[in-house]
Amino acid sequence: MRFISQTSSDGVTEQLFILGEIPGVLWTPENTAGARPLILMGHGGGRHKKDPDVVARARRFVTGGGFAVAAVDVPGHGDRPKDERYDRIATENQARVTAGEEPAPLIAAFQALVARQTVPEWRTVLRELQRLEHVGAGPVGYWGVSLGCGLGVPFVAAEPRVRAAVLGLGGALASAEAAARITVPVRFLLQWDDERVPRAQGLALFDALASAGKTLHANPGRHGELPAFEADSSLRFFQRHLC
Amino acid sequence: MRFISQTSSDGVTEQLFILGEIPGVLWTPENTAGARPLILMGHGGGRHKKDPDVVARARRFVTGGGFAVAAVDVPGHGDRPKDERYDRIATENQARVTAGEEPAPLIAAFQALVARQTVPEWRTVLRELQRLEHVGAGPVGYWGVSLGCGLGVPFVAAEPRVRAAVLGLGGALASAEAAARITVPVRFLLQWDDERVPRAQGLALFDALASAGKTLHANPGRHGELPAFEADSSLRFFQRHLC
Repeated sequence: MRFISQTSSDGVTEQLFILGEIPGVLWTPENTAGARPLILMGHGGGRHKKDPDVVARARRFVTGGGFAVAAVDVPGHGDRPKDERYDRIATENQARVTAGEEPAPLIAAFQALVARQTVPEWRTVLRELQRLEHVGAGPVGYWGVSLGCGLGVPFVAAEPRVRAAVLGLGGALASAEAAARITVPVRFLLQWDDERVPRAQGLALFDALASAGKTLHANPGRHGELPAFEADSSLRFFQRHLC
Repeated sequence: MRFISQTSSDGVTEQLFILGEIPGVLWTPENTAGARPLILMGHGGGRHKKDPDVVARARRFVTGGGFAVAAVDVPGHGDRPKDERYDRIATENQARVTAGEEPAPLIAAFQALVARQTVPEWRTVLRELQRLEHVGAGPVGYWGVSLGCGLGVPFVAAEPRVRAAVLGLGGALASAEAAARITVPVRFLLQWDDERVPRAQGLALFDALASAGKTLHANPGRHGELPAFEADSSLRFFQRHLC
């Protein structure tokens, strides 16, 4: 893990890093040392590790809860090179949807393919982050919706260090099988008028989670309209389960 | 409104009162004066105004948020005399369910009948409570699930002084029509494994609410197993909308 920049503002230190081919960012409280709970955040499709929504939420978790927060670019996103194989599949899928095919099964198959790469990548990133003096080997949480749910569900299912997760804006078709292996507390966010994930698909994914402690939060609005107050609610959820 | 007892413990003053034929209870912060937001609480079927769950939640709202909280007995419950007409209908309904009839439409019709009495009763209680020096005419919230939802939905729909409501454990068959007239912020609680309200009925009631600001919180468990942390979440909801 090689750090390539460090800046601080408003009580938050931001460090950009590279681990192998994976560019990432780590946010921690400024001027503090020692171990703290870590939250990994997955970004949405077409977004990246420093998407404004990701940064705002990360800073809230750092300043409000004293957490360390990290995000990495998904292959083909942000500072990573285009991936020819993924690009080809995406182009093919787009053509199939234009020709009238249902998008949900295509998205599900595509996310499953990408997850075969990102699950081991994220586990490696987690291992290296926990070796840092200002992160340490404490409890780990995961936050990810939309693509961050599609890739996050198999990650949380595979990674025993993750003790609690906020997931959502994803459907059962893509993720139900892995969700049935998740037993840690989950907060699941659903947008009632989601134009990309059919309501029944989202409810079925919540249903599929094996966690005894899971809560669904549903709000009116479209896929991209998660209400701001859910960020504070996520913070309290992580404080309850990781601190 | 005639007060018949007053006790205080752990920072909460509890006053029992009678208004006409309606026995009620008012909880307020001990040793404080002046106006404060008021939360009316509806109790569940077969329960009463001083059910342990009602008392615990009321005390939490008083000590945690400085609210005034009040509850009254539904006709035929608590300190109120048996109501022969309601009893006869309940007995008839029980026989029809035993004979194989679906219970949901019978419960819906019964709650609609009782609500024709409780909506005007609760509006009168609200008016009188707001005349008290230690309550005042500030913002009003409503909290009620199960029967407290069946009777609460038509009350909240009819009473413009109510600015925010926590509802839940109720179904569309009983309440969708009145719910479509509710526009204030609503927190809706649903138990994912509710053995009394079919999941689709609960989701359809949430859907029917006309409120732009409504949030569904669904948790695993049966009708009577609302998780304790939802009480704190309700408190924050009322603080956000009434304070």
